[in-house]
Amino acid sequence: MLAPRQHHKRTIPRTKMASLADDHVHSAGRMQAYSDAIFSIVATIMILPVAHTEIPEDKNLREVIFYRLLPKILIYILTFFVVAISWTAHVWLFQIVRRADDVTTLLNLFIMMIITFLPFTFTLMGTFPEYVLAIVLFSVCIIVLGVAQALVVLHVFRNPQIMEESIKNSENKVAVRNALLLRVLVNPILCTLAAVFSPASNVISYIFLVMILFSPNIAVQLSKLISKCSGSVQVSQEVIRRGKSYEMEVNKERVECYSDGVFAIVATLIILDICEKDIPSVADLEIKYKNDLAAALNHDSSVFLAYFGTFATVGLLWYIHHSLYHHLKRTSRLMAMFNNFSLAMIGGMPLAFQLTSMYKDTDFYNNERVAIQLSCVIIFLASISQLAIFVTALFRPDQDLTDSARVGGRSHYYLLVKLLVYPTVSMTIYVISLTSDVLSVEAFHVAQLGTPVLFFILWLIVIQIQRNVQDVLNPEENSTQEGSNNEEQALLTAPPENIAC
Amino acid sequence: MLAPRQHHKRTIPRTKMASLADDHVHSAGRMQAYSDAIFSIVATIMILPVAHTEIPEDKNLREVIFYRLLPKILIYILTFFVVAISWTAHVWLFQIVRRADDVTTLLNLFIMMIITFLPFTFTLMGTFPEYVLAIVLFSVCIIVLGVAQALVVLHVFRNPQIMEESIKNSENKVAVRNALLLRVLVNPILCTLAAVFSPASNVISYIFLVMILFSPNIAVQLSKLISKCSGSVQVSQEVIRRGKSYEMEVNKERVECYSDGVFAIVATLIILDICEKDIPSVADLEIKYKNDLAAALNHDSSVFLAYFGTFATVGLLWYIHHSLYHHLKRTSRLMAMFNNFSLAMIGGMPLAFQLTSMYKDTDFYNNERVAIQLSCVIIFLASISQLAIFVTALFRPDQDLTDSARVGGRSHYYLLVKLLVYPTVSMTIYVISLTSDVLSVEAFHVAQLGTPVLFFILWLIVIQIQRNVQDVLNPEENSTQEGSNNEEQALLTAPPENIAC
Repeated sequence: MLAPRQHHKRTIPRTKMASLADDHVHSAGRMQAYSDAIFSIVATIMILPVAHTEIPEDKNLREVIFYRLLPKILIYILTFFVVAISWTAHVWLFQIVRRADDVTTLLNLFIMMIITFLPFTFTLMGTFPEYVLAIVLFSVCIIVLGVAQALVVLHVFRNPQIMEESIKNSENKVAVRNALLLRVLVNPILCTLAAVFSPASNVISYIFLVMILFSPNIAVQLSKLISKCSGSVQVSQEVIRRGKSYEMEVNKERVECYSDGVFAIVATLIILDICEKDIPSVADLEIKYKNDLAAALNHDSSVFLAYFGTFATVGLLWYIHHSLYHHLKRTSRLMAMFNNFSLAMIGGMPLAFQLTSMYKDTDFYNNERVAIQLSCVIIFLASISQLAIFVTALFRPDQDLTDSARVGGRSHYYLLVKLLVYPTVSMTIYVISLTSDVLSVEAFHVAQLGTPVLFFILWLIVIQIQRNVQDVLNPEENSTQEGSNNEEQALLTAPPENIAC
Repeated sequence: MLAPRQHHKRTIPRTKMASLADDHVHSAGRMQAYSDAIFSIVATIMILPVAHTEIPEDKNLREVIFYRLLPKILIYILTFFVVAISWTAHVWLFQIVRRADDVTTLLNLFIMMIITFLPFTFTLMGTFPEYVLAIVLFSVCIIVLGVAQALVVLHVFRNPQIMEESIKNSENKVAVRNALLLRVLVNPILCTLAAVFSPASNVISYIFLVMILFSPNIAVQLSKLISKCSGSVQVSQEVIRRGKSYEMEVNKERVECYSDGVFAIVATLIILDICEKDIPSVADLEIKYKNDLAAALNHDSSVFLAYFGTFATVGLLWYIHHSLYHHLKRTSRLMAMFNNFSLAMIGGMPLAFQLTSMYKDTDFYNNERVAIQLSCVIIFLASISQLAIFVTALFRPDQDLTDSARVGGRSHYYLLVKLLVYPTVSMTIYVISLTSDVLSVEAFHVAQLGTPVLFFILWLIVIQIQRNVQDVLNPEENSTQEGSNNEEQALLTAPPENIAC
């Protein structure tokens, strides 16, 4: 009965076979992009519980920050890093997947579900650190996560057609698979121990949980140990090298994707609050404002100024991030850490928005200035860690930077100026707010709105210089690429002062 | 003074020139991805004001839905479409940009700022349709948007090195530019008229605002008219054709990017509510629950079940969308419209989550069942419009579909089954909820969690059949691509019943 079908199938030409492969095995690109989006949003969205903390206007904001906000902020930053780390692991794991079939996609969706739930269990643990249940819940999340990832590894190695070429063709596939499995299962093991010991002593279980941060190294050491015992040194070396290279080089495009997600969600979280709170209800308009919509909106005017100011800052920090990563060749783990910290701070912008927009008419204890100062600190930390990425890259220019961004390179100074703008501006405002009382929230937001204009003027100067020199040079070459580039270079080798002023 | 520098520059080899071009002119890819993310999040995040509407547990939910939720839901859907339309225009406009320089990037950021603010002005207009100020504010937004887009067009045409090749090399550049400018400035003109007439009569200004939906066609007609007057018919034809083709074919990858954004934000908005509301405060735990964390969490247990159920649904709808778009070659305007509607419905999932998770112990007026029914309607509409995309594509298979997805194609039936699962499931649950009282919210969420298992079983059957037939066929060919594909085909040409059961 099967014979004829068999025969029929045998006659299918190879070209058709190839197209057949595409029917159910899709390129993994979209799955990864989707995961990046979820990871970044989950990491950032945790700022809202902080931003939505009830702050009575008549309390001293400095005290509120220290006693009520700070613990929450710390939990937010920790959560952000937990998510960022699991994202790195996810990227690293899915580097073995060249094309995603249905099982991989469904498993990935399951992993996403756990990841999205992770912040809850982590926040719970952060709020009630002494409770066994909290520790156990978080551990269970990590264990399930690890098991799901292990299933992905097993599935991929059972279906070579969806596997990354480099691994598919490596002669010691099994060793690679075991190394991957080990890496993926270290966290579950640590969490199992943490969960088991939590009734006895929280301290021990937290020690195990902290060890998760070093799980990559632990995995490498373990696989080294195992291969020593089994004696197959050469293989283990290969595996460890691969393992390391996986760790170190999180694909640059993926980092950009992840960062874009954070910037995008931050930009939109701000407007969300406005749409929820600042659209007056029909009843309010009738009773409070006697149907005068202008008056109703005018009452929240400071909010809109705050919105445009904050958006401008977030947008420009993205723009700087964009220019910076355009000149990076790769991201080391240290640079990734700086990037994550910068993103975590940018995630704090909704909080800055909340605080700077809530103090309008009445002002006790100089709360207005405290709010401005906190915003300045957030912006400063976000921008300075972007600068730190560039500085780190400068230590290994050959590996990390494009030619033009290196010292003496064409865009070196221009990029440096861009990276220096926000640290300088935020620092200046902070100092002013310390010394004088003139600085109001409105002034702060106007300053925020002014900064992009600064960038724009900077660019206009660039253009103008180009045009002038160009005309002097050779009018017929106008608006051709070589022409404009010559001048670009003439300009960019000039010291930053000339550009900035 | 310039001479030596000039001389110096002339000696730069052409290879360096090329690299110079890359210094400040980046590939437009990342800017577009960032914009897609913002657009999709802005469109979706507007559901939260709806989802966060205060609903007293002791009121009749059916009445609450009709008198309090429905108007908000309508505004949400309209906002979603307004944002989606401006996104289409944005994609269409930026097709002329091959690579983004700093000015384009900054202008794009400014456009993003207006886009993010658009929902506020629109919601304001939706809440107070009779107020002149509301109409004027919305109009001003659109006008500023149009002007910014016009600036992008002018900038790009002044800097050919960042322009798309096809336009750069077309002999009637000027005509194309004018057509683009016309297209971009139609909306501002309409809005100016709307704003001007709003004091006289709202009706007239709303007529003008509705015309925005047809602005592409208006632009085409106008450019036709103008070119008629100027007599250059041939050019106008070329321009119109291009204009049309721009409209019709919004790049498939961009649609996927945009959709991913919506799915991702929806998936994470759900957990946000849990993290904000369902982590008990230290005080509550002490007083209410006598430091019994388990009891505190158990009190919200239904919320967690609701979360996992909703996430499973959103995730799988993404997975179906993913499989569907993998088999689409292009998206016509009609398909884009269906996709937008599907996404708008998926954006409604947080509302479904809210309603199905709020009714636990007490239940008045069968509110529990009403909540389930609303969720079913949302899921049904979301999934049926995905099916509608596929059906639309089937009308022009040669243009729209890959070979394997067409009627009689290898994955035609399998894809159809995938697309039919959710309409069937949601419909069934809805009918059950009408007939019997047994259906509880818990049962509904368990059903939601069951659906992915259904998909998984389906896939396992596929694999199993493959394996079996394969073994019979030729054992040595196991786990090689041709082998598995033969069977894939054998299976996929089988009727859907065989696969589904």
